[in-house]
Amino acid sequence: MSANQPATPQYEAFYSLPAQKRAGRQPAARGAGTVKPRPDNVQLAFGYPFPGSFPIDDLTKATGEMLKAEGTSALQYGGGPGVTGLRDFLLERMAKRGMPAGPDNYLLTYGSAQGLELLARVLVDPGDLVITEAPTFFGGLRTFQMQLADVKGATVDKDGMNMDELEIILASAEAAGKKAKFVYVIPNFQNPTGTTMSLERRKRLLELADKYDFLIAEDDAYGELRFEGEDLPTLKSMDKSGRVVHFGTFSKIIAPGVRLGWVIGPAPLIATMTATRIDGGTAPFAASVVNQYCRSGDLDKRIAWLRKEYKQRRDAMLGALEENLPAGKGVSWSMPEGGFFVWLQLPTHVDSREIYAGAVANGVSFVDGPVCFPDGGGKNFVRLCFSFNDSEKLRQGIKRLAEVVAPKL
Amino acid sequence: MSANQPATPQYEAFYSLPAQKRAGRQPAARGAGTVKPRPDNVQLAFGYPFPGSFPIDDLTKATGEMLKAEGTSALQYGGGPGVTGLRDFLLERMAKRGMPAGPDNYLLTYGSAQGLELLARVLVDPGDLVITEAPTFFGGLRTFQMQLADVKGATVDKDGMNMDELEIILASAEAAGKKAKFVYVIPNFQNPTGTTMSLERRKRLLELADKYDFLIAEDDAYGELRFEGEDLPTLKSMDKSGRVVHFGTFSKIIAPGVRLGWVIGPAPLIATMTATRIDGGTAPFAASVVNQYCRSGDLDKRIAWLRKEYKQRRDAMLGALEENLPAGKGVSWSMPEGGFFVWLQLPTHVDSREIYAGAVANGVSFVDGPVCFPDGGGKNFVRLCFSFNDSEKLRQGIKRLAEVVAPKL
Repeated sequence: MSANQPATPQYEAFYSLPAQKRAGRQPAARGAGTVKPRPDNVQLAFGYPFPGSFPIDDLTKATGEMLKAEGTSALQYGGGPGVTGLRDFLLERMAKRGMPAGPDNYLLTYGSAQGLELLARVLVDPGDLVITEAPTFFGGLRTFQMQLADVKGATVDKDGMNMDELEIILASAEAAGKKAKFVYVIPNFQNPTGTTMSLERRKRLLELADKYDFLIAEDDAYGELRFEGEDLPTLKSMDKSGRVVHFGTFSKIIAPGVRLGWVIGPAPLIATMTATRIDGGTAPFAASVVNQYCRSGDLDKRIAWLRKEYKQRRDAMLGALEENLPAGKGVSWSMPEGGFFVWLQLPTHVDSREIYAGAVANGVSFVDGPVCFPDGGGKNFVRLCFSFNDSEKLRQGIKRLAEVVAPKL
Repeated sequence: MSANQPATPQYEAFYSLPAQKRAGRQPAARGAGTVKPRPDNVQLAFGYPFPGSFPIDDLTKATGEMLKAEGTSALQYGGGPGVTGLRDFLLERMAKRGMPAGPDNYLLTYGSAQGLELLARVLVDPGDLVITEAPTFFGGLRTFQMQLADVKGATVDKDGMNMDELEIILASAEAAGKKAKFVYVIPNFQNPTGTTMSLERRKRLLELADKYDFLIAEDDAYGELRFEGEDLPTLKSMDKSGRVVHFGTFSKIIAPGVRLGWVIGPAPLIATMTATRIDGGTAPFAASVVNQYCRSGDLDKRIAWLRKEYKQRRDAMLGALEENLPAGKGVSWSMPEGGFFVWLQLPTHVDSREIYAGAVANGVSFVDGPVCFPDGGGKNFVRLCFSFNDSEKLRQGIKRLAEVVAPKL
């Protein structure tokens, strides 16, 4: 075989699949993929933790300690004490946050992403209704679309998902004899808007779940990274009828490279999600390293430090926006109390996809609005990530962005 | 939420899904799941490497060296030099085995299992024809069935898959206006039979692929673990028309717990498989550790040692079979020249599922034949794994098995 071998006729058949199915199997259109960034690019696109946040020495130490103590089982299919130890650590941690759960309610996954995929895989048949926030996390959105869900969105304002809009979608589906399979929400420091769902709306969402009979997929990737204001209870902790499936991840509080997340949910659902896997268990080696790290260190102390670091970065980004791209003339942005993202609104005549190439040429990248919307709307929005860069780079990035945007205002 | 929360009405809806779809989403019936083994059970069921084979000290060392040298990128989404280093290492290794490939032909996965799943996901629509060996690896079979493929099997004899049977299936499909999406084979030391596909049949399979226009999924999990006889060229190395997708794994030559496999295939297919993933890249941390391990150690020397170890284990199992359950009266077994498995045939009136509970009660477990067949046939067959136990345990396990089988002969 040569490295550039010809496509076989079967690929042609694949590419002539019906549009709906093909859409689910091809890369989402995303500006970031099509323009090559400058070497000095300030990447404000992806939700990467800052490199200095990774506990390199402690993970090295944990690996040695774990392999010495546990021996071989961490390297076998399924793993051993490290894998069950991590499970118990997480169940205890969930219980402390008001989400008591047993081993039957727990599933370790390759990041939240795999959890979302397993959920969609077991629940969604082609054409099934799934409702998300609009905008929402593009990875989740794409996962549901890949299962050929009919994804509809309810808009997000400063208090989170608009529950009246949600109910209109639900009622309209009911009138057509349909139910939503699940409603996917990121209640804390939402991706991409940075907003937090109010307590009142959380209650209303749970009521709607009972009234219209759907499950709630609660993605809590950023929940522990609040830097101001007061924690709100998770939907799972308020869940009286077993309708909430809660997704957690180590990606934002330890490191994405370990690829570890978890799901807490109703036992029959977890059993079915587990049964669809044939992959030899989630990363026994990495899970056992992370268990050792969690057991021997102080994760809460680390998280407290991360909150301070991320607050500084958010402040730098908001300050730079105020300075370089002042609110008004159709420009505004969200004020996140935690998490990784600021959501920037531009005047309706500015298309974030059209300014993308210019921005990258000027040394800054971002995620354009439309990839975050089920219907491709939101063209005058931009997701800005403040987690990856230090304050100086953030100011530089926002300045570069403003240089591209200002002439359009 | 309580640990034992009630199922919601939506689960009832799920469990009333059409049988075909439900079958694809529920655990395969497997005897091993239903009977609790004794504490002193000799597990001959699953293809686990023996615990003493894992390079604990070297992996500990590699972790420290890698994190010190690479710094943070191994812990970030996507990873850094360790991930590209492993890619280059594997591409060079594949080239040495007659399979030159470029970065566009390569995909790192969570074991071969994820590779097979991605392949099925992008190629298989419900009802599409997929052909496997019969018997075959139950994990692969289940993956294809979960994508709702119509899986048909061509039987395996001592020279591998029966190509005349394969052609009958293909011609019959063609007569009905259908093609096979792919044919899945394990040419070397097949799982579960331990047999190796002859060179002549490899050539014929490639000819059939051209004639009937299908892809070949070549699972080479055991290919480097030959302990006698001569290596045969891989299908991929003989592939002139870009029809072979080759699956490799570190599970059998380093450790399953790192969950790392790779796919080498046509660039457009690899691109599509990659595009269906949203999971933040395969295990950057584990991949970087394994790259460091491969770069600083001598993988070929390790494999040479593993071959000797596995040969001893195979010899112990075959010797114990000869001693305790002599061939004849409908009893026979395969003579693998490599890999992990021996395939035991019992008289047609003996059902491996019916003797399973008795065997486990007597302290030995195995995989029953029917889970390895697309149509559930093969009831008088048993898969025995010799990779996990030492020679003494293997002899004990076979003796226990014989005690249960002998009265039935």
